[in-house]
Amino acid sequence: MSPNFTVVGAGLAGSLMALFLAEDGYKVELLERRPDPRVQQRVGGRSINLAISERAIHALKEAGLAEEVLAESVPMRGRMMHGIDGSTTFQPYGQDGQHINSVTRDHLNDVLLGAADRHPNVDIRFEYRLIDINFDKRTLKLKTAGDDIEAHPFQSIVGADGAYSAVRGEMQRRGAFDYSQDFLDHGYKELTIPAAPDGGFRIDPNALHIWPRGDRMMIALPNDDGSFTVTIFWPIDGARSFDSIPDGDAAALRQRFTEQYPDVVDDLVDLEADYFEHPIGRMVTIKCDPWHEADKAVLIGDASHAVVPFYGQGANASLEDCVLLRDALRRNPNDRASAFAAFGRDRKDDADALAELALHNFIEMRDHVASPAFLARKELERKLAKYAPDAFQPLYSMVTFSRVPYADAVARSRRQDQLLTGSIGTATAAGLAGLAALLRKAT
Amino acid sequence: MSPNFTVVGAGLAGSLMALFLAEDGYKVELLERRPDPRVQQRVGGRSINLAISERAIHALKEAGLAEEVLAESVPMRGRMMHGIDGSTTFQPYGQDGQHINSVTRDHLNDVLLGAADRHPNVDIRFEYRLIDINFDKRTLKLKTAGDDIEAHPFQSIVGADGAYSAVRGEMQRRGAFDYSQDFLDHGYKELTIPAAPDGGFRIDPNALHIWPRGDRMMIALPNDDGSFTVTIFWPIDGARSFDSIPDGDAAALRQRFTEQYPDVVDDLVDLEADYFEHPIGRMVTIKCDPWHEADKAVLIGDASHAVVPFYGQGANASLEDCVLLRDALRRNPNDRASAFAAFGRDRKDDADALAELALHNFIEMRDHVASPAFLARKELERKLAKYAPDAFQPLYSMVTFSRVPYADAVARSRRQDQLLTGSIGTATAAGLAGLAALLRKAT
Repeated sequence: MSPNFTVVGAGLAGSLMALFLAEDGYKVELLERRPDPRVQQRVGGRSINLAISERAIHALKEAGLAEEVLAESVPMRGRMMHGIDGSTTFQPYGQDGQHINSVTRDHLNDVLLGAADRHPNVDIRFEYRLIDINFDKRTLKLKTAGDDIEAHPFQSIVGADGAYSAVRGEMQRRGAFDYSQDFLDHGYKELTIPAAPDGGFRIDPNALHIWPRGDRMMIALPNDDGSFTVTIFWPIDGARSFDSIPDGDAAALRQRFTEQYPDVVDDLVDLEADYFEHPIGRMVTIKCDPWHEADKAVLIGDASHAVVPFYGQGANASLEDCVLLRDALRRNPNDRASAFAAFGRDRKDDADALAELALHNFIEMRDHVASPAFLARKELERKLAKYAPDAFQPLYSMVTFSRVPYADAVARSRRQDQLLTGSIGTATAAGLAGLAALLRKAT
Repeated sequence: MSPNFTVVGAGLAGSLMALFLAEDGYKVELLERRPDPRVQQRVGGRSINLAISERAIHALKEAGLAEEVLAESVPMRGRMMHGIDGSTTFQPYGQDGQHINSVTRDHLNDVLLGAADRHPNVDIRFEYRLIDINFDKRTLKLKTAGDDIEAHPFQSIVGADGAYSAVRGEMQRRGAFDYSQDFLDHGYKELTIPAAPDGGFRIDPNALHIWPRGDRMMIALPNDDGSFTVTIFWPIDGARSFDSIPDGDAAALRQRFTEQYPDVVDDLVDLEADYFEHPIGRMVTIKCDPWHEADKAVLIGDASHAVVPFYGQGANASLEDCVLLRDALRRNPNDRASAFAAFGRDRKDDADALAELALHNFIEMRDHVASPAFLARKELERKLAKYAPDAFQPLYSMVTFSRVPYADAVARSRRQDQLLTGSIGTATAAGLAGLAALLRKAT
């Protein structure tokens, strides 16, 4: 008996999708090429922290897991920008109380995987690596930890195996399949600000910290153990790049940080070890089309739409995919091909919109956030949203604090921007009510 | 002893590149995964005829092979458009005597491969399939016809193995490598107009025939045996698509051609057999970046820049690549990494420009060529080019009858277009001299 669904990849999307399918009565096989992460020694230095917000939280609530995840999160109420002179500027993300949540990928994954594992309809197999899919015979060829080859029958595959998806690779070999991968010229590296000796945070825990430095930047996200995960985003080569610090040259490293990040250099307690031992990561935008193959396979998460991390929406989008695919299957219970097609048709435009937002936000974070004009604009947007929330919603709020589809959020934001740009020359704080009335009429 | 260069793929670009390198004194190993095409039964229905012009002819002259290739070509002096009512309109491609040359891919490949084969510095191995490249140890893993695995050492690889390049695939696995493949929604299928019973041509041999039909079209290119290779470009599904003719339904097929291509349906003597036996081909645009890996590998031809066939420039660009890479190596005889980098840096913009030209020309060929405004515009361009060739060069002429880099041709054409669009309202035949003076001053 083949399972109703074979989910490839037990990361965030794969684990939640397996759980959703199981809850809807399907028998699910969940395959993961790595060992069970819950029994492994964790290795640091390889993954950006996650900032989860409305889309992810909604998906987690649907699975009854939001509380468990958020119990180990740290709320971040806004951006804290650090100038090169040590000055700081705080900019709230939204209205009073709105915040995003810093969680580690490991914690989120453990909760999702644990819930899937407990469901009797889910059969998880670790260290099963996908070698090949025979779409005509509906069999997967898998390599086990012992290097044995097994053939598993399938009804439908959910490819949740990430940016370098093997399922997508097999679909790509089937013929006319559009695909692109675009790497950023910047790389990233993770550093750590450990907890203070008393266990407390060394810098403000309730913010996402940014050190904007033109076309480079550093950020820090709090962890609930008092530490911060710090990430530098630098060019691979050229001036002030990774390449311009010779391997092992601690003096050059310290000079760079003392010049560029003076207010925090002493908090980066293990700077040398972190820097010289952690790898340089690369960031990629991946797009493909179509996302499904008849009723035989469908892609979700990074497998279909990997984005760069600068809008904090990658994990949010992946978990939201699971809700949308589940709902498409509920609407088409006896026609998976139509469910997969409907899911991809609606979601592809949103994924493309998010990809552009994420790329653009890198420029905004590292550069614009430091400009007075940008701060003034954000302040105006916040007031508009407060006085006339029905008429004006900042793009960031729609993306982060709502479940409006990404493409719709971008389209609405463009309309608002046109009106605002047309009016901003004459707008004063006192004139906001009139502007709000105009916006209310027009959007 | 490892060869100086290992060229993967003995198609058009690979064969010519192997020859150029051999003539410059390098020892070359030329690997081809298929059997020797010169001793195989040819199989039809799978490749569009080639229209070669200045860029390819220049490359062939550099190898002393232009005469041999052109001996079996048919000159095409312009486009012959066929209306649905059977009317025809002829539009010359350039000035008096300028023409493009229809050759079969097989003939061109045979000439190039034969010349490479005769050179003592070239060692050709057929039925050697690339499995894997070890860039660190500089070895290629190859599978032979007998399914043996051989490891061949290399100094530098030239990847000339086409749109689905295995060399590129190995480079892609090395890390940050940008890549995209975009398929057209249209497919193509080859048909034949055989020679007339007396051995002559059934329709005008000195033209590229086009049956423009909105978002579909058919074309025909002459062969020097009196036949024409005919290609239909239709949507895969939807109205008047490949999908809307049921498999084997000869009546539906004949009805489609009688309605859409009435003037030539009787000349398609083997219509049913050709149509139902030949596969539907797909067309893809492939881009990647970078084109080289240190001094270890460089990509040329379709491997780095596959384009759709509508500008007739794919083979021209591939053969021109060989000249440009040869020249870059001559300028950097002791630094292949710099030679490869310089080649890619200069050529990537041109390849991207050609990709856009080729996509756009599909729309022009199938749709615009039938419009009176388009014909009038072409007529004006031709007159301008005749009266003021120093001031105005049509884009088609720069691409087809010159070796101006593609991106430069597009940029110059944009400048000309801006001037022309600004002036065209007031231009009359008598006013052309003044317009030419203006253009002469400005470009």
